[in-house]
Amino acid sequence: MPSYKAPVEDQIFVLSDVLKVDSADIPGYEDLDRDTLDAILNESGKLAENVMAPLNRVGDEQGCKLENGVVTTPEGFKEAFEQVKDGGWTALDCDPEYGGQGLPYIVATAVGEQFSAANIAFNMYAGLTHGAYSAIHAHGTDAQKAKFLPKMVTCEWTGTMNLTEPHCGTDLGLMRTKAEPQDNGTYKISGQKIFISAGDNDLNSNVIHLVLAKIPGGPEGIKGVSLFIVPKFIVNEDGSLGARNGVSVGNLEKKMGIHGNATCVMNYDEAEGYLLGDMHKGMRAMFTMMNEARLGVGLQGYAQAEVAYQNAVDYAKDRLQGRDVTGVKNPDGPADPLIVHPDIRRNLMEQRSFVEGARAFALWAAQMIDRAHKTEDAAADGLISLLTPVIKGFLTDKGFEYCTAAQQVYGGHGYIEEWGMSQFARDARITQIYEGANGVQALDLVGRKLAQDGGKHVMAFFEMVKGFVADTKDAGEEFDKHFREPLKAASKDLQAAGMYFMQNGMKNPNNALAGSYDFMHMMGHVCLGLMWGRMAIAAQAKLDAGEGNADFLKAKILTGRFYMARQLPMTGAHLKRIESGADTVMGLDAELF
Amino acid sequence: MPSYKAPVEDQIFVLSDVLKVDSADIPGYEDLDRDTLDAILNESGKLAENVMAPLNRVGDEQGCKLENGVVTTPEGFKEAFEQVKDGGWTALDCDPEYGGQGLPYIVATAVGEQFSAANIAFNMYAGLTHGAYSAIHAHGTDAQKAKFLPKMVTCEWTGTMNLTEPHCGTDLGLMRTKAEPQDNGTYKISGQKIFISAGDNDLNSNVIHLVLAKIPGGPEGIKGVSLFIVPKFIVNEDGSLGARNGVSVGNLEKKMGIHGNATCVMNYDEAEGYLLGDMHKGMRAMFTMMNEARLGVGLQGYAQAEVAYQNAVDYAKDRLQGRDVTGVKNPDGPADPLIVHPDIRRNLMEQRSFVEGARAFALWAAQMIDRAHKTEDAAADGLISLLTPVIKGFLTDKGFEYCTAAQQVYGGHGYIEEWGMSQFARDARITQIYEGANGVQALDLVGRKLAQDGGKHVMAFFEMVKGFVADTKDAGEEFDKHFREPLKAASKDLQAAGMYFMQNGMKNPNNALAGSYDFMHMMGHVCLGLMWGRMAIAAQAKLDAGEGNADFLKAKILTGRFYMARQLPMTGAHLKRIESGADTVMGLDAELF
Repeated sequence: MPSYKAPVEDQIFVLSDVLKVDSADIPGYEDLDRDTLDAILNESGKLAENVMAPLNRVGDEQGCKLENGVVTTPEGFKEAFEQVKDGGWTALDCDPEYGGQGLPYIVATAVGEQFSAANIAFNMYAGLTHGAYSAIHAHGTDAQKAKFLPKMVTCEWTGTMNLTEPHCGTDLGLMRTKAEPQDNGTYKISGQKIFISAGDNDLNSNVIHLVLAKIPGGPEGIKGVSLFIVPKFIVNEDGSLGARNGVSVGNLEKKMGIHGNATCVMNYDEAEGYLLGDMHKGMRAMFTMMNEARLGVGLQGYAQAEVAYQNAVDYAKDRLQGRDVTGVKNPDGPADPLIVHPDIRRNLMEQRSFVEGARAFALWAAQMIDRAHKTEDAAADGLISLLTPVIKGFLTDKGFEYCTAAQQVYGGHGYIEEWGMSQFARDARITQIYEGANGVQALDLVGRKLAQDGGKHVMAFFEMVKGFVADTKDAGEEFDKHFREPLKAASKDLQAAGMYFMQNGMKNPNNALAGSYDFMHMMGHVCLGLMWGRMAIAAQAKLDAGEGNADFLKAKILTGRFYMARQLPMTGAHLKRIESGADTVMGLDAELF
Repeated sequence: MPSYKAPVEDQIFVLSDVLKVDSADIPGYEDLDRDTLDAILNESGKLAENVMAPLNRVGDEQGCKLENGVVTTPEGFKEAFEQVKDGGWTALDCDPEYGGQGLPYIVATAVGEQFSAANIAFNMYAGLTHGAYSAIHAHGTDAQKAKFLPKMVTCEWTGTMNLTEPHCGTDLGLMRTKAEPQDNGTYKISGQKIFISAGDNDLNSNVIHLVLAKIPGGPEGIKGVSLFIVPKFIVNEDGSLGARNGVSVGNLEKKMGIHGNATCVMNYDEAEGYLLGDMHKGMRAMFTMMNEARLGVGLQGYAQAEVAYQNAVDYAKDRLQGRDVTGVKNPDGPADPLIVHPDIRRNLMEQRSFVEGARAFALWAAQMIDRAHKTEDAAADGLISLLTPVIKGFLTDKGFEYCTAAQQVYGGHGYIEEWGMSQFARDARITQIYEGANGVQALDLVGRKLAQDGGKHVMAFFEMVKGFVADTKDAGEEFDKHFREPLKAASKDLQAAGMYFMQNGMKNPNNALAGSYDFMHMMGHVCLGLMWGRMAIAAQAKLDAGEGNADFLKAKILTGRFYMARQLPMTGAHLKRIESGADTVMGLDAELF
């Protein structure tokens, strides 16, 4: 049975020592001193470790059941969900006006990593609810907010996002679900939605569906899509639950993983719905949820790699197999532990250096979001908009890759379900697909975000990296060699790729789009390289000052050196691929495939 | 429901046009003219397409069952297995003295690709039997051969390999299974083996287990291991089946994939066994099986990618989503097919260029094996020994990677089991693990094979690549630019890595071993680059001569150009990783993980 230990020390290092949150100029951050963070993250960590993680295998084995139209979650989920609600963990960063605790998003992000690592399928029930909460909070009328938000903040009611239909996922302009306006201002929603995560469940008393649909007579395609609130049970004026609405679960999908989450086919049959936000502007409202969801999915990606890594380390220390070629390490045992072998180490260091870098990236991104939201900082808003597809695409691709790498450490046992390593890989696999498949993230990045506002945000990104390189020019020879130079080289590769797109994408946009996936990964590497540079500076400063846990800080610097030496050079290969253009990618007639 | 189409045209292109098998100086090859190959591969292809492939999902969904000690395979497996036996497909390259057809191994390899693509779990029953056949054929006494081989050639009896025990997989020296010598020359085998593929089944009347065990009083560790034949039912002198032997199935493992194959815990309780080969030389005999099995697993890896690719192409042509940015391609439809989008193309071309390159690599390797076996060519034997870990490790890593890439084309549908793409990925995942996890392959390559016979074989490999580069210096500007130069550059990177190992591995072997995995992948890329060079030359020659299917040949050259431009540059990144040495890999104390 795999286990999970919340990485509180590392989270606090990033928050307090690298991002220095309590001195950041963002409202609400002034309270985030080390002791406060420690108290919160240890408490959430216990919940993750002791309540959620033990249910992870249970959820995988039992899955959800649909009987007579009613979804049942796996044994223990309901009791665990009560603990999450009772502890106020669903309300962390929600608006106090509706019962939230009003903490910064960055705190919810750190907690979310723990919860996602411990049990991704379970945590999605609250995660989707938070997304729906955000959309209603941003776009709802005062009456809608008053009616729905308090119960969603506490997860007494859960929420969902309904976008996909059988014939359209990415291309939502093809949507067929209809919303017929009624005389009383409501709408009748009819159609079928698929892949609805947490679509129904037995954890709560009501489900608030957010549903994209078309109002007849509106504009064609994506410009005629509106967003609706469709509760499972109609909510009466006094807040009590009324009649069952015309929405039902058609089927539960059998999936590769996240079995503990009910992925539903939802049938809407003249269900009563309420327009959320402006008519025909549904995509704008939905993107409030999507952007938040994309960051959350990036978090899930590296969180799964984190828990898989922890278990791989345990196994590598425990399992005796073969001898260290440089000299026996465990003379009293029949063999040395796996961790003495260089290729096992290579594998573990790849996992470790990714996960720690990704954590810093995600928390940095959360800080940008807080800055954008709480200080109306347009630069932060532009930067996070640019980086959202990178966080989603890169952190989930690598997250899955390292889940399978961790599985590999187990040899044959990694393939046997009872050891749990297969589940981490199967569960992580969805993160590359949902909330916009990673190819769509790459398209968003290169086809849209690079050029946004005249390319201002990507230029700001390069300036920021340059600024870090300039600011650290006196950080010493070791830093120069192991961190600064590799980061400079990688950033140069990334700029060259951007230049290639500018020069060749005009002639033929496919020259840029054929390199979009590589660019997304390059940018991910540069972001992690920047994070490692910042972490190394922070760790060295503490070491120099004689503060903190020296073992932890030295390990941090060495792990960073591994990333810079062994992962950052990937940017060179990506650049070469990009510079080969679209010829070989697009050259084959479709019929010849 | 996914489908499979045997790639006969491409297989024959490689066999007849690239490897020119019928003019190769290898006994038995003279009969392999195009018509003969066409007849065989179309016939086997029909079996794969119509009988095996339709059972692939069935096998995954139903799995095997163990009831009262009896293993039942999924519905339809028994009838399909009868068709395989009746068609003589299990006997293709077996010795005619024991009922085999005596065809070259290369023919069995081409057929094996089809069968593995169509249904890997099903095909393992015959595959394991073939391995056991080979070990008995190479190491058995005449009496043992006469007794067991004829029924194994026809798969009337199936075979297994029993190596792993709960506490030891790679490090077989730790083995505990015992073989007590009896007065009548037989042995009593006692112990537990795990992960035994095809360990028992209802497809046949007997199972011939090959079991590694230790004879008490023998040398310690791996040098005291012997190999035994242990039949499920004792075979009487007249060939009839006698008493049930002391071997039983303790459990069926629940696995990530290959559910249609019974992965058994096997319990041996004073089972009667017969020494195969020399006492204490069991590993040597087992390696006859292992090397064959490793090539077979490499085959499985790219075969799963082939079938996954085929289905991804079908979906990309069929699914309408979004519009081509360079101009609408399907004006009468609501959207263009996925295949117009550059990143979908990039993904499909990666799959395609890998699979076709891997096919050429595997068939070339099979030709080397035939040459080594049938002409006692020591150079061919040395080369295939060098390349076996590359075939196993690289083709399965990439095979799995491209199964997940194919799954990605399906978006959300790829995650839903009924579409079948998840199964390809889950099934392919085992190929990276069994028959020596891929890290062990890398260790075998760098720790053992590179230095074998004074480095003669790796030098011969480099000479061969150089020879190809020299021989093609007048193949024209296009070839030079798109194939020859990239191959030269990649080969140079590979040699530089080898040089780094020589110079730094002496000081500290970890400097070499920390780069072993990267070297295995580099060498895989160079091998595929060489194959693509050879295929491009062969295709161009046919085009110049006005022979063959021009569309096929042009597509072949373009696909090769894609590989050379977009995949071969990976060698540069691998080299940089290797040249960073062991410092960052091994620097962290084990306790700090």
